[in-house]
Amino acid sequence: MAKDGKEQSKNEGNFVFVGKKGVMAYVLAVITQMSEGAKEVTVKARGKSISRAVDVAEIVRNKSQEIKLSGIEISTEEVETEDGKPLKISAIAIKLKK
Amino acid sequence: MAKDGKEQSKNEGNFVFVGKKGVMAYVLAVITQMSEGAKEVTVKARGKSISRAVDVAEIVRNKSQEIKLSGIEISTEEVETEDGKPLKISAIAIKLKK
Repeated sequence: MAKDGKEQSKNEGNFVFVGKKGVMAYVLAVITQMSEGAKEVTVKARGKSISRAVDVAEIVRNKSQEIKLSGIEISTEEVETEDGKPLKISAIAIKLKK
Repeated sequence: MAKDGKEQSKNEGNFVFVGKKGVMAYVLAVITQMSEGAKEVTVKARGKSISRAVDVAEIVRNKSQEIKLSGIEISTEEVETEDGKPLKISAIAIKLKK
């Protein structure tokens, strides 16, 4: 199952970046990473996707009693809009641990 | 400024429940509660408003160096839909401290 690619992401720290797909796609991504040996997975999101990241973490946590919440951080990131202007956007990082 | 009402909410613990208004309405609510003597204010939200609650906390924190983040909790709450069915919804509580 694409072992080489996964191995590399394991060294960089495992994360799942939540965007506009359905919640279950990200839930599955977290569970897959953990079943492949990751002890910790960080669920990250920015802007309006933050609510979906919380849904992902809550569903994962309620699905598996093995997986615990190990920390939540919020921050402000500066991104560039299409017309090159700086835009401040909130971000969240939710750490889940096995 | 409606001192009696405020006094009561102080005893119950101060919180600002974030809904569908503009972000700055909630930022102002937090800053007002703190300027009236609250040492800690919890910013709460459910569902899609979670992203807005993170925006509120980040704006308050970036506006005032006195105010620090003191904890973030996520949870799942069960609410009832209009037709009486139970619905699980994610929630966040962000504690800000002076």
